[in-house]
Amino acid sequence: MPGIIKQRLFTPGPTPLLMEAQARTLTAANVHHRTEAFRKILAETLELLKYYFNTKNDVLVFASSGTGAMEGSVSNLVSPGERILVGTAGKFGERWLSLAQAYGIEAVKVESPYGHPVDIEAMKQKLAQEGPFRAVYIQATETSTAVMNDVQALGEAVKNYPETCLVVDAITGLGTTDLRPDEWGLDIVIGGSQKAVMIPPGLAFVSVSEKAWGLIAKAKLPRFYFDFAKERKNQAKGETAYTPATTLVISLHAALEYIKEMGRENLIANAALLASLAREAAKALGLKLFAASSPANAVTAVCAAEGMDSGAIIKELRSRFGAIVANGQGSMKGQIFRLAHLGYYDVADLFAIVAALEIALVKLGQKVELGKGVRAVEEAYLRLVS
Amino acid sequence: MPGIIKQRLFTPGPTPLLMEAQARTLTAANVHHRTEAFRKILAETLELLKYYFNTKNDVLVFASSGTGAMEGSVSNLVSPGERILVGTAGKFGERWLSLAQAYGIEAVKVESPYGHPVDIEAMKQKLAQEGPFRAVYIQATETSTAVMNDVQALGEAVKNYPETCLVVDAITGLGTTDLRPDEWGLDIVIGGSQKAVMIPPGLAFVSVSEKAWGLIAKAKLPRFYFDFAKERKNQAKGETAYTPATTLVISLHAALEYIKEMGRENLIANAALLASLAREAAKALGLKLFAASSPANAVTAVCAAEGMDSGAIIKELRSRFGAIVANGQGSMKGQIFRLAHLGYYDVADLFAIVAALEIALVKLGQKVELGKGVRAVEEAYLRLVS
Repeated sequence: MPGIIKQRLFTPGPTPLLMEAQARTLTAANVHHRTEAFRKILAETLELLKYYFNTKNDVLVFASSGTGAMEGSVSNLVSPGERILVGTAGKFGERWLSLAQAYGIEAVKVESPYGHPVDIEAMKQKLAQEGPFRAVYIQATETSTAVMNDVQALGEAVKNYPETCLVVDAITGLGTTDLRPDEWGLDIVIGGSQKAVMIPPGLAFVSVSEKAWGLIAKAKLPRFYFDFAKERKNQAKGETAYTPATTLVISLHAALEYIKEMGRENLIANAALLASLAREAAKALGLKLFAASSPANAVTAVCAAEGMDSGAIIKELRSRFGAIVANGQGSMKGQIFRLAHLGYYDVADLFAIVAALEIALVKLGQKVELGKGVRAVEEAYLRLVS
Repeated sequence: MPGIIKQRLFTPGPTPLLMEAQARTLTAANVHHRTEAFRKILAETLELLKYYFNTKNDVLVFASSGTGAMEGSVSNLVSPGERILVGTAGKFGERWLSLAQAYGIEAVKVESPYGHPVDIEAMKQKLAQEGPFRAVYIQATETSTAVMNDVQALGEAVKNYPETCLVVDAITGLGTTDLRPDEWGLDIVIGGSQKAVMIPPGLAFVSVSEKAWGLIAKAKLPRFYFDFAKERKNQAKGETAYTPATTLVISLHAALEYIKEMGRENLIANAALLASLAREAAKALGLKLFAASSPANAVTAVCAAEGMDSGAIIKELRSRFGAIVANGQGSMKGQIFRLAHLGYYDVADLFAIVAALEIALVKLGQKVELGKGVRAVEEAYLRLVS
């Protein structure tokens, strides 16, 4: 330990925590979940989640990672022998395919190369020509490649199929992009606690439209823990079917109050601003963005310079500045690093990480004009913020 | 609330907290101070304080601000009719004079203009020609002007007077400058909790040499709460004469363990590095340092540009970036702003505040080459850190 080096999360989950929300759990150390006090907290939290999701649909909470809710969105909607359509553009899109396989469901896929968004026109074509599909699956933001998908366009298309639901993994999309589930026809939207809502991992959220509830009633795949209809009944009474993660719910309640006070749109604008400043920094430093188009607000994937291992940059950032930045996943490992703009994270944090990145690059032998990335961030800030 | 803006302390106290030390108090919610468990904590804390102070002398803890220990260093050492010598170079030096006045003690002063260190040669001369003085008072770091005094040279001089004690206010000096109480003859050294030790306000520390204990035994000014000899007796048994601030002691224990693990010299090097990087930033941005010489490691005082109110800079930093920076005190208000390098604070924090400062200056109509201050910090970092 050569001096003070703070640990700073710049990862797309877990994200920097809102300490006020963490502190709230301390005053509720002995909450029991089968009490009026907790029922009130859970009921309020579910209402706040509707605000956060920007929906009038039911929103349910599960003690699980986001993947649990993804699984539930397959097992609750589909029956054996039915088919699904998957738009995939990275590691998280591929998870839909794994889920389909695990449940023995045939998945037709529209696959984009890493760094590109899902081709929505191709999905529409499949819908029209290769259906019927019980459900369509996509990511709002593909976290592994830092690309945003046009879920609005897909939603407008799926609306025309009364027997088909659209499921959107918005685990990193929520709180970072404008999503309008009701208007756009996003039947199931999935979120997670360790993302823009700035609390620790352990909770998944899922909003369910009336159209989806209709299909869920008929779906025959096996499910138990992630049984949406069972939870709907319980959560309407401020309870959960199984033991809820009480302290996480209490944190969530506090964090959502903070977000409501700030305004959902301001939280989204915060991520959009940070992402746009980060892209300016990368450009100024001569680093290529991995996203060929539609870069995400939640996270920016930056390519390491030719012949350089992105892991080396990540190591320098970690050891010198305590900054935890994510590597690429799967085949992207070593090629890119991913700088998230999620959680309790502000412009001053971005100033710091960009300056740290400049040092890391110099230490790795890159030719970098010191301060150039930060200057680009500052210029963009002055342009974008009054 | 336009988005996420974190509150960040860059003030010379309170300082950013070590959250691990704060968390420790939660596991000790029901500690009673007259128990073996607390006696053990206090005894260990006092041992750790010796390490922190770099001394073999007794170190005592008081539930008070640093000023309480300053008062005690007058009331415990001096008798009515005796005289003291005060070296003053700013607001905190002037506090010695107020204390002397409150106790009806004649103080001879060596006064430096704000921005200059105390003239140690002049103090030596007074000692030789205008004595006897029961005690000599000075700041290790004058926080109001961000200037460091040469307490080593003063200590070597006072050593020659067996009936005179040297009292050093090291409230911001501890943990930021190399201090050697035993070697240099710093008989009483004063510290405070809300400074480099990175816990909240509420505790004062004071180290007392054998020479000082000898004089304390004869001193006749009235004292009760800040009775050093009484506390020495109590604290030797792991108790305090009056109720101790238990949670602060528990935090202190944890913070000192962190500092011991890091190494006192590394904590000091951290402040020295940050201060030296901050000075480079100021220089690059064309801003004058307030310290004409001997700038402190604990805090850097920067002059606002001609005709500009430093309060305007502080307001921009606070509203845009949540960064709390101190204004000048007294007649220096509006002339300078003070950027501290104290507490749980690292290089990445400095990157952030310098970039924020560039934005603030531009917003106030200054001609600033964006990124230039940060570049200067990065260049100095690369020069100074391997």
